[in-house]
Amino acid sequence: MNDWNAYARSYGERARAAARQLALAESDAKDHWLEVAAERLRDATGSILEANARDVAAAPGLGLNAAAIDRLTLTPPRIEGMARGLEEIADLPDPVGEVIEGYFRPNGLEVQRVRVPLGVVFFIYESRPNVTADAAAICVKSGNAVILRGGKEALHSNVAIHQTLADALAECDLPPEAVQLVDTPDRDAVGAFLKQQEFIDLTIPRGGRSLIERVAAEATMPVIKHFDGVCHVFVDRTADLGMAEEILINSKAQRPGVCNAAECLLVHAAIAQPFLKQLEPALQKAGVQVRGDARIREALPWATAATEHDYRTEYLDLILSARVVDNLDEAVAHIETFGSHHTDAIVTSDIGEAEKFVAAVDSAAVMVNASTRFNDGGELGLGAEIGISTDKFHARGPCGLRELTSYKYVVRGSGQVR
Amino acid sequence: MNDWNAYARSYGERARAAARQLALAESDAKDHWLEVAAERLRDATGSILEANARDVAAAPGLGLNAAAIDRLTLTPPRIEGMARGLEEIADLPDPVGEVIEGYFRPNGLEVQRVRVPLGVVFFIYESRPNVTADAAAICVKSGNAVILRGGKEALHSNVAIHQTLADALAECDLPPEAVQLVDTPDRDAVGAFLKQQEFIDLTIPRGGRSLIERVAAEATMPVIKHFDGVCHVFVDRTADLGMAEEILINSKAQRPGVCNAAECLLVHAAIAQPFLKQLEPALQKAGVQVRGDARIREALPWATAATEHDYRTEYLDLILSARVVDNLDEAVAHIETFGSHHTDAIVTSDIGEAEKFVAAVDSAAVMVNASTRFNDGGELGLGAEIGISTDKFHARGPCGLRELTSYKYVVRGSGQVR
Repeated sequence: MNDWNAYARSYGERARAAARQLALAESDAKDHWLEVAAERLRDATGSILEANARDVAAAPGLGLNAAAIDRLTLTPPRIEGMARGLEEIADLPDPVGEVIEGYFRPNGLEVQRVRVPLGVVFFIYESRPNVTADAAAICVKSGNAVILRGGKEALHSNVAIHQTLADALAECDLPPEAVQLVDTPDRDAVGAFLKQQEFIDLTIPRGGRSLIERVAAEATMPVIKHFDGVCHVFVDRTADLGMAEEILINSKAQRPGVCNAAECLLVHAAIAQPFLKQLEPALQKAGVQVRGDARIREALPWATAATEHDYRTEYLDLILSARVVDNLDEAVAHIETFGSHHTDAIVTSDIGEAEKFVAAVDSAAVMVNASTRFNDGGELGLGAEIGISTDKFHARGPCGLRELTSYKYVVRGSGQVR
Repeated sequence: MNDWNAYARSYGERARAAARQLALAESDAKDHWLEVAAERLRDATGSILEANARDVAAAPGLGLNAAAIDRLTLTPPRIEGMARGLEEIADLPDPVGEVIEGYFRPNGLEVQRVRVPLGVVFFIYESRPNVTADAAAICVKSGNAVILRGGKEALHSNVAIHQTLADALAECDLPPEAVQLVDTPDRDAVGAFLKQQEFIDLTIPRGGRSLIERVAAEATMPVIKHFDGVCHVFVDRTADLGMAEEILINSKAQRPGVCNAAECLLVHAAIAQPFLKQLEPALQKAGVQVRGDARIREALPWATAATEHDYRTEYLDLILSARVVDNLDEAVAHIETFGSHHTDAIVTSDIGEAEKFVAAVDSAAVMVNASTRFNDGGELGLGAEIGISTDKFHARGPCGLRELTSYKYVVRGSGQVR
């Protein structure tokens, strides 16, 4: 099959029709589906594991390494986790229909801004098959139809999970086309979907930089993008050094491979030497390599020299760039020059310095005396997260149910004219 | 000069630097600028009129018709109107710094979502030179730097107005590069600006469909688009027919050339004949031509037959398409099929039917017993408007100060780690 445009368009048309119905569905109906789908996933454990075994068997041939094969592999507890995830989303409040604001105009018109679904979401993701259930749940709960495009290495698993979710939609009298799965591994198909602006309202690519860049370049509809997380911890002159140590180690080393892990330490010159000496054993215990400027290497002679390139790098590893700064302005300038506007923290006891940092640092999340690792949908209380936006338009930071919505003005009058 | 990329980039770099400063400016400083700029515009009336006279003199040679020349022409009262516009924007609340929501997490973290400027706006508009002052004021008040690209027919006027605004910025210790004007009429320059995603956060094209389509296709940054306004008035079976007549005539004929004017009347079959008979003299008095289906033409024999194409057309003229429907579902289906999701109204006395219509019609504004003409920034209380979005992403409907902002998460803790 080569007519990918017709293929993508047919998905889009079905999704649009389903989205119209779903936008009108009661909260109870959507939550009922989430609960039924959770049960059906549990019931289907055997057949899902069977499909997964086929993917896992083929994985080495596709060049997947051990870590990737682990992410691909489903087990009964992982399937139970998927089911619980659906039940947790059922418990979240429905964003659709929320009156965001309401007021009367002098002429008596009552104006409301009411939250509505965006419509149709095209979601592109990679190897973990549990994302299939998670993304479908977030989209449907927020009243959106979704077209799922998983990695080819997980196709059998995704087909099995998707079938369960779609059957549960039918069982609950909701349109099964509200959740569709792209059933070809062909990469050209993606390009055709990215041209369906008539039928797709938003594309969310979750994966590496090259995927996101390709999608941003080709998409004709809005895209929620997630680029680098070059996150900083700035230890101010008045910082509680014990707190600063804990926050820095947690930000860097608790899970170094994620986007909200710290990549760079900035230390105020006034406390740099004692702080770095105090920090040294914890860094070594956590196995963190340091690349620093001259003043950093004075305190930590085992550190190597940092280049400009280091300051721009998201290591996603136990490596930390570090720099001594003479004041807060220099810290802010470093963050604005080398950072990626993702998550940046200050550790300080001075409320004035804290407020200056909060105002001046233009990042999706600015932390005061807390780990960068808290920039996460779950930790910030969003409940569920379909991605993290490094854009400023529409949604910034973690994207949950609310970020998959738009609004409309509802104006009620009694015959008003202009 | 042909290196438009370098040209556009230099505008972008200056705008980005100015935006960083402007994001930190106090409300008072921005409002002071608006007041000073208003005074300086009044002071500069003579030189602005002189520049405008050069544009007006050249206009016939550029092919402008009388209406376009009228829009281009400035007069002392029109300059006074521009100045008052700036003063009115000074009186609006500053959106920047607004705490959109705030809450504590179980671990004691205090989370706030705080409104911040988007950054740099590229604004493309056509002949009316007063838009120069208006757009600059809305952008700066919301903390954004703006790059203005007006029509070539208004270039001398725009240069004079822009100079006044930039001088006032310098006088108020704000960065003059917060408001820049593209000083070439070359169309290729626009293409270069549309590639500056590193320096421009949002493009707003205000003009005809071809301009907006070109910008949407070429832009590498988000675009707020305004396409058609195919707006409907549905007169339900329980409508107060006097109210329905007033609303229909106001929606269609009060200012037929604007996007929120009604283009199509839908009438419930149960009251179609008496309503149309009652409406007939008002339609004729307002000079409205009707293109209707068979049942419309039964009541209004002078109406011509409507085609599918009519139902999709934004006439922007004293022409009304019309159709009799058997029930509300048919009205909604018509609106969803032929409409443009801009503004749609129901006239009804039945609260259940009103709520069904409000829920089912997915338009930027849904009116109950009010004219479609109220979908307007001023009428909805936004204060000032830089455009109207027909998208659902980020902003929908009228775009004022708030729609030119994003947000950041500010998280305050006392040493929390994960």
